[in-house]
Amino acid sequence: MSTEAGTKVDAGAIAKPFREEIQRKVKELKELGIEAPLLVGLLANDDPAALKYAEWTGRACQADGLRYELRKIDDPINVEQALRDANNDVRVHGVIVYYPIFGAVPSYSGSSRDDYLRDTVSHEVDVEGLCHYYRSNLYQNIRYVDTPRCEKKCVLPCTALSVVKILESIEQAYDNSKPIGKRMEGKVVTVVNRSEIVGRPLAAMLANDGANVFSVDIESIYCFEGGSGRLRKCSEEDENLEACVRKSDIVVTGVPVKGYRIPIEWIQPGTVVVNVASFKNVDETELLKIPGVVYAPMVGKVTVAMLERNLMRLFENFHHPEIRKKKLGYETTKLIENGDTGRPWYGSLIQLYTAVAVTSLIALTMMKR
Amino acid sequence: MSTEAGTKVDAGAIAKPFREEIQRKVKELKELGIEAPLLVGLLANDDPAALKYAEWTGRACQADGLRYELRKIDDPINVEQALRDANNDVRVHGVIVYYPIFGAVPSYSGSSRDDYLRDTVSHEVDVEGLCHYYRSNLYQNIRYVDTPRCEKKCVLPCTALSVVKILESIEQAYDNSKPIGKRMEGKVVTVVNRSEIVGRPLAAMLANDGANVFSVDIESIYCFEGGSGRLRKCSEEDENLEACVRKSDIVVTGVPVKGYRIPIEWIQPGTVVVNVASFKNVDETELLKIPGVVYAPMVGKVTVAMLERNLMRLFENFHHPEIRKKKLGYETTKLIENGDTGRPWYGSLIQLYTAVAVTSLIALTMMKR
Repeated sequence: MSTEAGTKVDAGAIAKPFREEIQRKVKELKELGIEAPLLVGLLANDDPAALKYAEWTGRACQADGLRYELRKIDDPINVEQALRDANNDVRVHGVIVYYPIFGAVPSYSGSSRDDYLRDTVSHEVDVEGLCHYYRSNLYQNIRYVDTPRCEKKCVLPCTALSVVKILESIEQAYDNSKPIGKRMEGKVVTVVNRSEIVGRPLAAMLANDGANVFSVDIESIYCFEGGSGRLRKCSEEDENLEACVRKSDIVVTGVPVKGYRIPIEWIQPGTVVVNVASFKNVDETELLKIPGVVYAPMVGKVTVAMLERNLMRLFENFHHPEIRKKKLGYETTKLIENGDTGRPWYGSLIQLYTAVAVTSLIALTMMKR
Repeated sequence: MSTEAGTKVDAGAIAKPFREEIQRKVKELKELGIEAPLLVGLLANDDPAALKYAEWTGRACQADGLRYELRKIDDPINVEQALRDANNDVRVHGVIVYYPIFGAVPSYSGSSRDDYLRDTVSHEVDVEGLCHYYRSNLYQNIRYVDTPRCEKKCVLPCTALSVVKILESIEQAYDNSKPIGKRMEGKVVTVVNRSEIVGRPLAAMLANDGANVFSVDIESIYCFEGGSGRLRKCSEEDENLEACVRKSDIVVTGVPVKGYRIPIEWIQPGTVVVNVASFKNVDETELLKIPGVVYAPMVGKVTVAMLERNLMRLFENFHHPEIRKKKLGYETTKLIENGDTGRPWYGSLIQLYTAVAVTSLIALTMMKR
């Protein structure tokens, strides 16, 4: 690697330790006599990107010892029932729906049916982390599903999470020596895409880690202030993509339009560029001529690793909470034995006192006889 | 009214008894010393239809004794926080967001932000009945929020509900002598629109009342079989709009496209036609020449009445459940006094022990005397 030119990130290498951790956990589960988590994929279209994603998920699960079952559905209208069946099936630990389903079909009224499906995935099996519950928690920086106990972490939207994991692996983006919530302090990021699937969750996650984020869509630019997670409209001077990109340490592109390109002259030396779109939003050859640039052209391999990680987290949170007590490579947590009520067996201190006092009184009375 | 030609439905007349019921309930609340329910409207755009809707809601609430507060928000990005503030404000009993917000803004990724907001409205204040919880209950024909107690009815999406109320007022559409769930038995309905806001909830409601519904969008036609609420793909012979409309007793049009017209020759004598679109989807003059046709050109006035009705239901369900015990024109319900905690009568084991111990002590003391 020369310091004069950019370098390319190998997503496979970043995914590797996460997938090895899954393999290790699956092995440890087997030793405990517990079957590996089961992920069910629901596919109801012929979209080539969806087919490819389904294929990838299946192959990765198989390689890492997870169970995977692809359910093909003949008609979009039947996805909802198939989804409810999977939600309610105790043998199923994770569900992924391959979109677009209704989004691919012309409609008088837009594609809110896909959003309806996204929210119909139960949060106990939502490996993509895209149901309203998880997104809404993320936007409010609520990190646990069991606040105030705080033992069960939320899952996070997995494509956005894959970008974070890529950035964490790049020294100039993340300072891992700082405490959580401050590791991106002082960094300026531009995210070109503000969808509920990728761009907005990503902006929120980076802001939750301390970055100042410009969240860009066709007609507007918003800022997420580091740490607060609150969006606000940008000041006049920031309000164009060029100005944002020029002052950014990190640029994430997610424009689902063939031929869309970020003008290469906007990218400063040393910038980290991540492309999450299926189209290349940047001219790779030219980009890599810029000194110190780090470029991640694709996130898919890391996304699949994050899917697996989310699956394992759901398995531990909701399906086999008892294994959180065992080692399995996790921090051991104090798990109260008698269920999840958070109350001790004696109810409250006053109740305990009353019982002790009455018992003493009985003892005294009987002794007196 | 001549039997040779069609008649027009007066939406105001249908709304009237519902609004009178609201006025009566508000009066009875006042007599009990309870302030009228407060509806908060959130407006963050200059869309003329949204402005008009906001104006209508305010005027209707004022006329019927309900409290209404319009909150104008300068920037769409601040709607979410305003919505959370209203959700969490115990003084607020209902919230309506005037769409489109993000749906009106060009975006790389479609308008799922409006869907996100729709689902962020808490079900305790959702006067439009459009959050995922109520839609999902409707599609599964779950009619109560407190199953199996079944004292608190779900609210229903209010535009779709307004169509149902219009149909209920038309003899040839609804047989009110039949039991609930069978009042549209044998009726064939075509609904041209399958959005999550109007068309799909409406199709589900009519099917839940026993009708056979053709649910039509640009490229596909689905059937809701009467009573089951399950959608299925139509057979080949049904699969065009003309065939569906020709065999329908009721046709509902909701095509948000200027100039879209249902060909008038498809409409059979005696058909009920309801237009929910803001554009006229049918040539009114020609339509009213068809014998026995009943035509409702607009549903807005009934929709506002349904908003008020939903507000009152939320008020009773979640904010002032105690008034459900009082008369107030409702069926009196068996309300279990000690709440809904799901705890046994003795509280906890320690409380049971204490009670037994104290009783023993009293017995011992008395025996000693």
